[in-house]
Amino acid sequence: MIRIGILGYGNLGRGVECALRQNPDMELKAVFTRRDPAKVSILTQGAPVLPAEELPQWKDKIDVLILCGGSATDLPVQTPQCAALFHVVDSFDTHAKIPEHFARVDAAARNSGHVAVISAGWDPGLFSLNRLYGQCVLPQGASYTFWGKGVSQGHSDAVRRVEGVKDARQYTIPVESALEAVRSGSQPQLTTRQKHTRECFVVAEEGADKARIEAEIKAMPNYFADYDTTVHFITEEELQRDHAGIPHGGFVLRSGKTGWNEENTHVMEYSLKLDSNPEFTSSVLVACARAAFRMAQEGAAGCKTLLDIPPACLSPQDGETLRRELL
Amino acid sequence: MIRIGILGYGNLGRGVECALRQNPDMELKAVFTRRDPAKVSILTQGAPVLPAEELPQWKDKIDVLILCGGSATDLPVQTPQCAALFHVVDSFDTHAKIPEHFARVDAAARNSGHVAVISAGWDPGLFSLNRLYGQCVLPQGASYTFWGKGVSQGHSDAVRRVEGVKDARQYTIPVESALEAVRSGSQPQLTTRQKHTRECFVVAEEGADKARIEAEIKAMPNYFADYDTTVHFITEEELQRDHAGIPHGGFVLRSGKTGWNEENTHVMEYSLKLDSNPEFTSSVLVACARAAFRMAQEGAAGCKTLLDIPPACLSPQDGETLRRELL
Repeated sequence: MIRIGILGYGNLGRGVECALRQNPDMELKAVFTRRDPAKVSILTQGAPVLPAEELPQWKDKIDVLILCGGSATDLPVQTPQCAALFHVVDSFDTHAKIPEHFARVDAAARNSGHVAVISAGWDPGLFSLNRLYGQCVLPQGASYTFWGKGVSQGHSDAVRRVEGVKDARQYTIPVESALEAVRSGSQPQLTTRQKHTRECFVVAEEGADKARIEAEIKAMPNYFADYDTTVHFITEEELQRDHAGIPHGGFVLRSGKTGWNEENTHVMEYSLKLDSNPEFTSSVLVACARAAFRMAQEGAAGCKTLLDIPPACLSPQDGETLRRELL
Repeated sequence: MIRIGILGYGNLGRGVECALRQNPDMELKAVFTRRDPAKVSILTQGAPVLPAEELPQWKDKIDVLILCGGSATDLPVQTPQCAALFHVVDSFDTHAKIPEHFARVDAAARNSGHVAVISAGWDPGLFSLNRLYGQCVLPQGASYTFWGKGVSQGHSDAVRRVEGVKDARQYTIPVESALEAVRSGSQPQLTTRQKHTRECFVVAEEGADKARIEAEIKAMPNYFADYDTTVHFITEEELQRDHAGIPHGGFVLRSGKTGWNEENTHVMEYSLKLDSNPEFTSSVLVACARAAFRMAQEGAAGCKTLLDIPPACLSPQDGETLRRELL
């Protein structure tokens, strides 16, 4: 049994808790929180909810700690700290800051002899893997990543900050004709606007100027100005009824040429269609927790990403079974 | 520079030669053949064509030997033999015999301290990887593999053995409605007939009884009896004009549930659309040759499959670059 702890009990922490129930070789030992533990109620019978300060006392009672905080402020601090005590897994997803996060976590994990898997999830994560496999197999080619259809938390937040907006939900949507162009093998050059559209469902404050809100959203630099954006005004009830889920997904494509004169075209495509972005990410975190434990047993230490994990380490089955049943 | 040798110069060997040209960290040192080397003309300037018997003399001049023979009789003998001399890569694809092939190759490679990658390609290979990742991330779910549209060599050969058939080409075609059912997340149970159809293009001998040929093909056990099969009679010219390529491809899907009550559905889909089956397989072999070399440098020995290879080992770029650019 691999003994698992969870730090942070939001959507992601709850998703990890659910995923653990589907993995009989792992056991949830405790959930740690920075909130008042008395106010956090979890689903698993028998696992205590404890203040984060008690983590050091669980050093020998937990094998892998799964960090379920945010990338902005939680993980940059927590992951190196916790890697001094446990094998750890996080879903750090600020792409531009991965190198420095890696360096800090690697130093801590090497120092304590633990394995720390960072940036586990689907992007970064499974999508990164597919970008890598695609590029290695078809070095003469082009890679494409499309996101959606799905809810972008950052863009939803940006809309909510517009004056007169009470609540909002933003969907990122890949442009079907762009996807088709890539699938044809023609290796098109695509602008930001050609790849994705953005759709906003907005609940306006009573009496707010909807035309101004719409114009302000569409003009927002970085977030919306470079995209064809549609804004729908709906009621609070409609938002809750039709937009309560957190679906997401996307596509990674590699299109490349082979042959002495590059006369043959190949297209590799990977796609995800997810009902719940946090639950799917949690499921990847849990598989990576197993890999961290396995790699440590084989003598590894330091920071790893999915790019470094031998795929078989993610599985509860042994190599012989995998070769017989999956290869 | 990784020094590469090729054993066997058919479609696959030629594909490896082409792929090497796209990978500047590798160099083709020699092609070995069991035919008369004087009768084998290759594309690469400066690389000699040599009789297979001379392989032992190249022990210190080649790092990785890529084996391009067939799974039926060549590889079971060649891979263990050559693993005594070099790091090796093969595309052994007789699924049922992989465990025994692995055991023989592993013993030879461990004994000589080499890394031997077997069953590299797309199925087994990239498809196996996707079956593994899918199953590890979504343990409560179902996996599906569809092949095609593409030319099946074994089925084309079977049609050619029917009396009165001069030449033939067989395409395996996934059933679109079955794919759609899987994509819906409903986890359908599908029979052999529901998953694929088979289409045969047949050149009949002059005066042959076409009705009998068609009936014989459709009734052939294992190959066609369990499928809806279409037979088209065409001329030799049409076969050469319209069916000269060796396209293939397929789909691996994983559909699974997450959530405390398994209330959320996710679908992971991987697909390949290949103009040239052997050239794409060759491209995977070449990436695996790099991984064999890298893993050996890090102290590994023995038999490996793509399931055991840390993905980053397939790439010519270092970990830091991969994290910065791909993760």
